[in-house]
Amino acid sequence: MTAFEFSLDGECGSARAATFATPHGDVETPAFMAVGTLATVKSLDPIDLREIGAPMILGNAYHLHLRPGDELIRDFGGLHSFMGWEGPILTDSGGFQVFSLEGLRTVDESGVEFRSHIDGSKHVFTPESVMQIERNLGADVIMQFDHVIPGQSDESAARDASERSVRWLARCVAELERLRAGGPPPKTTIPQRPPRPGTTFPLPAPNHPQALFPIVQGGIHPTLRRDAARAIQSSGSFDGYGIGGLSVGEAKPDMYHILEVVDGELPRDRPRYLMGVGFPEDLVEGVLRGVDLFDCVAPTRMGRNGTAFTSDGRLNIKRAEFRADPRPLDDACECSACRRFSRAYLRHLYVSDEMLGLRLLSLHNVHFLVRLMRDARAAILAGTIGTWSHDWLARYHSRPTPLE
Amino acid sequence: MTAFEFSLDGECGSARAATFATPHGDVETPAFMAVGTLATVKSLDPIDLREIGAPMILGNAYHLHLRPGDELIRDFGGLHSFMGWEGPILTDSGGFQVFSLEGLRTVDESGVEFRSHIDGSKHVFTPESVMQIERNLGADVIMQFDHVIPGQSDESAARDASERSVRWLARCVAELERLRAGGPPPKTTIPQRPPRPGTTFPLPAPNHPQALFPIVQGGIHPTLRRDAARAIQSSGSFDGYGIGGLSVGEAKPDMYHILEVVDGELPRDRPRYLMGVGFPEDLVEGVLRGVDLFDCVAPTRMGRNGTAFTSDGRLNIKRAEFRADPRPLDDACECSACRRFSRAYLRHLYVSDEMLGLRLLSLHNVHFLVRLMRDARAAILAGTIGTWSHDWLARYHSRPTPLE
Repeated sequence: MTAFEFSLDGECGSARAATFATPHGDVETPAFMAVGTLATVKSLDPIDLREIGAPMILGNAYHLHLRPGDELIRDFGGLHSFMGWEGPILTDSGGFQVFSLEGLRTVDESGVEFRSHIDGSKHVFTPESVMQIERNLGADVIMQFDHVIPGQSDESAARDASERSVRWLARCVAELERLRAGGPPPKTTIPQRPPRPGTTFPLPAPNHPQALFPIVQGGIHPTLRRDAARAIQSSGSFDGYGIGGLSVGEAKPDMYHILEVVDGELPRDRPRYLMGVGFPEDLVEGVLRGVDLFDCVAPTRMGRNGTAFTSDGRLNIKRAEFRADPRPLDDACECSACRRFSRAYLRHLYVSDEMLGLRLLSLHNVHFLVRLMRDARAAILAGTIGTWSHDWLARYHSRPTPLE
Repeated sequence: MTAFEFSLDGECGSARAATFATPHGDVETPAFMAVGTLATVKSLDPIDLREIGAPMILGNAYHLHLRPGDELIRDFGGLHSFMGWEGPILTDSGGFQVFSLEGLRTVDESGVEFRSHIDGSKHVFTPESVMQIERNLGADVIMQFDHVIPGQSDESAARDASERSVRWLARCVAELERLRAGGPPPKTTIPQRPPRPGTTFPLPAPNHPQALFPIVQGGIHPTLRRDAARAIQSSGSFDGYGIGGLSVGEAKPDMYHILEVVDGELPRDRPRYLMGVGFPEDLVEGVLRGVDLFDCVAPTRMGRNGTAFTSDGRLNIKRAEFRADPRPLDDACECSACRRFSRAYLRHLYVSDEMLGLRLLSLHNVHFLVRLMRDARAAILAGTIGTWSHDWLARYHSRPTPLE
């Protein structure tokens, strides 16, 4: 038995409602995970995330290795303790980031040598070193180190990368076993303090189980995706599966088709995590195709740019039409911004470059996706996901997206 | 009888503890008011301010007239409703701002013509127009429009400005009476919505009493300050008094001496508000000299720059020495940042340009000053303000201020 149970609560076609148990609590799926790349979901406080009902959040091994350093975070008891978030955390391996460093990195079978985007310093990521980093960070779910290629890659390059990712998976598994066998991480060098009254997160040091998720690659090539899914499963048993390399420029129908292919290949009793996909319409389409977990920077990035998700499509709060608009961003929304503030006030904050504005829109957008997945879950359990998603998508697409 | 009661709860030398009743609640003095220039205390949410225990906040007539416009705010039920803050609000008249527009403004007895710092558009501020703006904004306490001069002005220029400010006060009083006699502000043009469940601030439109505070000017010239205080009192009865033109570059002993002069001149049964003064040590020195209310952008501005107030002096969180420091900003502090986060985490947020960092430091700094005034009040009531302030100042100054 593992610390990571995935129990199906209901199914409706390919869509599933389930409960994913982790050492830091249960995640009811389908679920959206907010991205906290640098140990903070941009502009939001853990208190906000708890109030929103965010079930799980992300950190990033590449970014946190460079800044502030994964060993420092380990010495503070891991990411949960360092950033003050008690709920489940998933860390991405940084594969996507190091392979994006075009011109700053060299790749071979052993791993990737790259230069930091911050100061140009030289680093090496291998499946082994990434496991060490992710173990230091101490997230509940850790992603394998994989070979990521551009979305428009041809089938031959996609096959090479996908097959290398499967080989790297085996090295991740072996390294994680070696680390586990070595016992708990080294004792912290940080002086221990007695917990203060009222302190939520005294120092450290957790040593809870971590679930390693493989990543199914293969671009938009159904055969490669099938081969990858099968090779991964024949290499071992896992607590869940990532689906990578989508929403990177391919046509939407291609992405949806690949999800259907992968849905047919992955075991139904494990969670599937569609990496980096987070526009509302993609979440709904993903749920219909058997996806359980999603993440994306879109809600906070768009929030900082003044764009809000609403049930009627996107809304750019900077537009002059909202100058005296007394309505909330979304009439149906119960988030802290919509309960209290008018579009007129939020527009004023943006026009005046006031930080509260982008914070409130980020909060609204994350809440929007969290609630969207909660609603989808309810529809699955009620057996109405088909009509619910049809109606939801029709309303969302009914109004032309305002220019941004 | 007025809506603005000021009842003394205790005195200790010149220091006073009192309760200042306003239409939006009681303010226990001495008190620090956080500055929300543009209808937001930078980076903070009204929820944060409530949790901190901020007793009263500021808005600015100049800034809000230009953006989003005081008539828009009136149409949204006034500042309280527009920005979601139920507590007392004070608006500054904008005198300080328009007189700072060196080269962009012309002054005569009628008022000031100036160009907007945003788009260069032409505007005129007179005592009358400023009263109209402050009435539209609907704060509880509104400051008179005064003639502000540079801190280093000679006595003759200071006298001219001070005497003009007294003449402008009479025009403010007359205009405010005219506006009051005219009945409530015009009906809003914003469509009324039924309040949503959970909505704290349905639209509008308040028409509560407003207290006009005169401003005692006179630079660092005791005679001018005395003359101004007397001329103001002989021109009418007021619910409180502003003390302007200090902390603008003069030596600290000069400021403290002027406060002593003014303390002897102003009625003891009305609140005194020392404008724009907000460093911790100045607050303590001001309390000892009979000041009840303070405001300053320092806590939020310094918070954005990475500087925190602590009981042991200022702390620059960006310094390398805090890289692995598990302590909170201030061991004695009970704010939401100090209860949850280490200096190491806060430093990481600053180094990584993460907004949460400057938000948490702003929150800590405002909390620090609010609590400082609460502690001073307790010391006054206990009759120990002398030893309390001596000890507090000694500790605060004991460590050399780290370089910033």
